[in-house]
Amino acid sequence: MEKERDDGLPMETQLQEGEQAENQVAVLTVSDRGARGEREDRSGKVIAEMVRSAGWNVAVYKIIPDEKEIIKTELIKLAEEKRVDLVLTTGGTGVAPQDLTPDATLEIITREVPGMAEAMRRESLKKTPHAMLSRAVCGLRGKTLIVNLPGSPRAVQECLEVVMPAIPHALELLRGEVSDCGALPPAIE
Amino acid sequence: MEKERDDGLPMETQLQEGEQAENQVAVLTVSDRGARGEREDRSGKVIAEMVRSAGWNVAVYKIIPDEKEIIKTELIKLAEEKRVDLVLTTGGTGVAPQDLTPDATLEIITREVPGMAEAMRRESLKKTPHAMLSRAVCGLRGKTLIVNLPGSPRAVQECLEVVMPAIPHALELLRGEVSDCGALPPAIE
Amino acid sequence: MEKERDDGLPMETQLQEGEQAENQVAVLTVSDRGARGEREDRSGKVIAEMVRSAGWNVAVYKIIPDEKEIIKTELIKLAEEKRVDLVLTTGGTGVAPQDLTPDATLEIITREVPGMAEAMRRESLKKTPHAMLSRAVCGLRGKTLIVNLPGSPRAVQECLEVVMPAIPHALELLRGEVSDCGALPPAIE
Repeated sequence: MEKERDDGLPMETQLQEGEQAENQVAVLTVSDRGARGEREDRSGKVIAEMVRSAGWNVAVYKIIPDEKEIIKTELIKLAEEKRVDLVLTTGGTGVAPQDLTPDATLEIITREVPGMAEAMRRESLKKTPHAMLSRAVCGLRGKTLIVNLPGSPRAVQECLEVVMPAIPHALELLRGEVSDCGALPPAIE
Repeated sequence: MEKERDDGLPMETQLQEGEQAENQVAVLTVSDRGARGEREDRSGKVIAEMVRSAGWNVAVYKIIPDEKEIIKTELIKLAEEKRVDLVLTTGGTGVAPQDLTPDATLEIITREVPGMAEAMRRESLKKTPHAMLSRAVCGLRGKTLIVNLPGSPRAVQECLEVVMPAIPHALELLRGEVSDCGALPPAIE
Repeated sequence: MEKERDDGLPMETQLQEGEQAENQVAVLTVSDRGARGEREDRSGKVIAEMVRSAGWNVAVYKIIPDEKEIIKTELIKLAEEKRVDLVLTTGGTGVAPQDLTPDATLEIITREVPGMAEAMRRESLKKTPHAMLSRAVCGLRGKTLIVNLPGSPRAVQECLEVVMPAIPHALELLRGEVSDCGALPPAIE
């Protein structure tokens, strides 16, 4: 039975939301202090809330320390055992010595998607020149899209808003739900 | 004897056009369906037309399937045997499992030119957020410049228009026709 | 005893300036002709002047030829023996066959900081489409930040102005002077 809509949006939007509801997402917070329970994981919660608002499912939510091997092991497990569609990491993307999330990500992805990281940095640069220090990496391991987000709750939200509009199409392409249409869809006029 | 000009442009422009006419270009369409003859190669034709409009020569035009080893072999052949100045590929730059053109390109270039891919993505993002999913790679193998363009005819044209203004100078530098002037020419004021 | 200020700036700025004064910087000009003494190193001088204006110390200033192994050896020495906080290179970032500074840099850094190079290229593109040919790489070797700048004096100045605002925070993070605050600081509103 079809659910009633109460938001006045056209039916097409509703159907699209139905499709998106199947997306399985892992939220992975990378923080030494978070993993030791010394710090509330506000950024992970911001991500989880945005994921649910998009109609997707938070299948995994985990906090791990800033250790490259632990990050790599966790990312591989999420892609190959949990088989989530999307991993959103937060933390460890900066230049401090303990920031190793992008390096771990680079070592386990099979294909990079540099445009997502470029777009996040460009948008963040409008707020602060420090955005150019974000070393965030985005890429694919098999059919799983991995996106590194920064560590602060506000920057996490800003960056996730930038890549969000491209994620549904990316996941459809990864699952082979849409046929070969070239890398870029026809421009919208 | 000096040729007459009939377009009113200054002589310097005319000479520059003469130089550009020698550029040898390969158009390489990467598409399983195109290679099987099941799909008209509109994007390859768009590229060929733009190349000729620039006064360059389409020395090679070929359609190959989405197979990483085939793409690599073809790119190496174009750079080392055919010795073309420029290879323009179309197709296979997205995130679908069969999209492997950037990966093949990355494995055979000797030096990357990331700014060309960044510029194409930034321009395409003005049209659609999906542009951030383009994984296009640009780089050099010896004296040959290789540029990955997306798959759709419209996106191909948009992206080629972005990099076109930088290509003549790139090819002159690669051939050693201009002396050491630093990476960036003095800004035009 | 606290020093008097004579410029009317608030105290916080004064203290920040005090911190910056300790930054040790190496200026490394990569140029065959410069190394043979056939060409005045105007770009290196532009950098040195900007470094001093920022209140930092030019600890090393050297001109070396466009040889990949020499560039690599010098960068490693600056990071590990001289232990400078920042290396600013100029020259060799283009696509000419002898341009190998980014390639040497890529081979010796332990972590890349792609956003700094992206930001420089984007700003330079406002002046000339040739800016997309800059292959400049920015990254870290241990606690040393390495930034490739282009070769021409004007482009050097333009690019250094782009990354300058992010450098003090980067060096503080590298030295561990600021605690874990995520990759991106809270956006300024």
